[in-house]
Amino acid sequence: MTPTVKLNSGHEMPLVGFGLWKVDNSTCADTVYKAIKAGYRLFDGACDYGNEAECGAGIRRAIEEGLVTRSDLFIVSKLWNTFHEASRVEPICRKQLADWGIDYFDLYLIHFPVALEYIDPSVRYPPGWFVDDAGTEIRSSKATIQETWQAMEALVQDGGLARSIGVSNFQAQLIYDLLRYARIKPATLQIEHHPYLVQPLLLKAAVAEGITITAYSSFGPAGFIELDMARAKQATPLMEEATIKKVAEKLGKTPAQVLLRWATQRGVAVIPKSSSETRMKENLESSDFDIVAEDLEAISSLNLGLRFNQPTNYFPTDKLWIFG
Amino acid sequence: MTPTVKLNSGHEMPLVGFGLWKVDNSTCADTVYKAIKAGYRLFDGACDYGNEAECGAGIRRAIEEGLVTRSDLFIVSKLWNTFHEASRVEPICRKQLADWGIDYFDLYLIHFPVALEYIDPSVRYPPGWFVDDAGTEIRSSKATIQETWQAMEALVQDGGLARSIGVSNFQAQLIYDLLRYARIKPATLQIEHHPYLVQPLLLKAAVAEGITITAYSSFGPAGFIELDMARAKQATPLMEEATIKKVAEKLGKTPAQVLLRWATQRGVAVIPKSSSETRMKENLESSDFDIVAEDLEAISSLNLGLRFNQPTNYFPTDKLWIFG
Repeated sequence: MTPTVKLNSGHEMPLVGFGLWKVDNSTCADTVYKAIKAGYRLFDGACDYGNEAECGAGIRRAIEEGLVTRSDLFIVSKLWNTFHEASRVEPICRKQLADWGIDYFDLYLIHFPVALEYIDPSVRYPPGWFVDDAGTEIRSSKATIQETWQAMEALVQDGGLARSIGVSNFQAQLIYDLLRYARIKPATLQIEHHPYLVQPLLLKAAVAEGITITAYSSFGPAGFIELDMARAKQATPLMEEATIKKVAEKLGKTPAQVLLRWATQRGVAVIPKSSSETRMKENLESSDFDIVAEDLEAISSLNLGLRFNQPTNYFPTDKLWIFG
Repeated sequence: MTPTVKLNSGHEMPLVGFGLWKVDNSTCADTVYKAIKAGYRLFDGACDYGNEAECGAGIRRAIEEGLVTRSDLFIVSKLWNTFHEASRVEPICRKQLADWGIDYFDLYLIHFPVALEYIDPSVRYPPGWFVDDAGTEIRSSKATIQETWQAMEALVQDGGLARSIGVSNFQAQLIYDLLRYARIKPATLQIEHHPYLVQPLLLKAAVAEGITITAYSSFGPAGFIELDMARAKQATPLMEEATIKKVAEKLGKTPAQVLLRWATQRGVAVIPKSSSETRMKENLESSDFDIVAEDLEAISSLNLGLRFNQPTNYFPTDKLWIFG
């Protein structure tokens, strides 16, 4: 059984889920269906991943075949940067729900603390970072995080379109400011988190405020190598890192399982992605063993403060879009 | 002559000033007077330093003796955490001005993005972090940064109590949010900055937004050793660091001068402190030579992401008070 964590909203969330970033549209429905068959119940999607309709097709097939019901699943999605203005939040959330073919998200996150000018879904969807197709110009919006958060709260309070709400890629100070005006606290904070980016202060502080952390990129550079990122290619892959390998061998587990268990033992939820059914199962079964405290610490001490998901790593920008 | 930088407010600010943190009350007036004599024109104070009346006495003596006029000076002070509520900002700014014996600040900064419960100056002043004298309890306030910033803007627009306003110890994302609602942009961002904490992304982004960076703790761990901080004692003192020493020897300058010039050549203002008149002069004269690009880069490459000014380094806290 996959362990769960009780969010500050009162809802239970699986500690191990399936991440949908970079899952190809052509294979997405099938991948989601297979993941449900393998036992996954949490799916972490986003407008920006451009595959929500296909994800929806995958869960619909599983529900139609009687593998699961909607209430067995925990569906996560995210508000894109171009929809931060208060009037845009509910309409785009409804469109995303329609794409999935469901009537509520279990968790809906602000994807980035970056407000960009509105782009109508009929013009380009998902809209991405740039105002033009050529990818040369980025235009900001004046929507404050307070304005966006209050519209997120309305999704829970008025429409029931989201059961829990949270944030992603937020720095500590911005969360702390949000907590000053929030009527609903963020249930989760989703951040880049792996042994090269341990962020002990941020984790400790989030726990103290009752915010559950979800880690993305649990395998570190691995997920960024396919984006041809120099920084990711230079770092020793975590799967081949000596400490990780040693702990894995000792426990008779795979390095991937050790990386995931290191996170979940620290109370951090994980959302690995895999296209192979074997690895899907391995990742999901990463919670049925324990790493001893000494080894947990040895893994944490690999910390380099090395962040792969930073706008300057994708495209040249002078904007203050710093994710940590 | 000390070079100046033109702030986005239109006012000129000296690139080298004198920092008043940890300047003893008993010697403060004399130190400020001597610093003016040595040629300093910018003084960087704060409510929290607990020495504003003494600083004021020092500048009064210099003005009375005809060394300078008020308009020759650039006086900086900071709003403490317990005065973040809108109604507290102007009264405390007026009290601080009265302590200095002046009728405007050239620059007034939000000291930290931390809002604490109000403590009346008649109860304890400066109030510090804790609600009680024993230092056991910290109580937050619900004042948002937007509320505080709007009250800071009123100091400029209504009363002329501050000519420029800015922030200190703010992370990028919080500044970016502030820029969405600000009618007056922050003129400066004051942060910890030295070769062990280079923060290239934050600097680049601030420049792009027209915000001038002021560095505190330009000498790195040195300023924190007197606070008995283990982390500061473990790091190699920058004054003894090989690259810094080599560049200093090559130029016939002191390591301190190299550390300051490295900052000012990157457009970063500095506010060193010294009680020795010789070092006062040395620090002030740190802008009459240039470090070649190659050596600037060698110094920048000492970056360790090592931050000394973090609440968890002073007292145990689970709060999201992370300064970077």
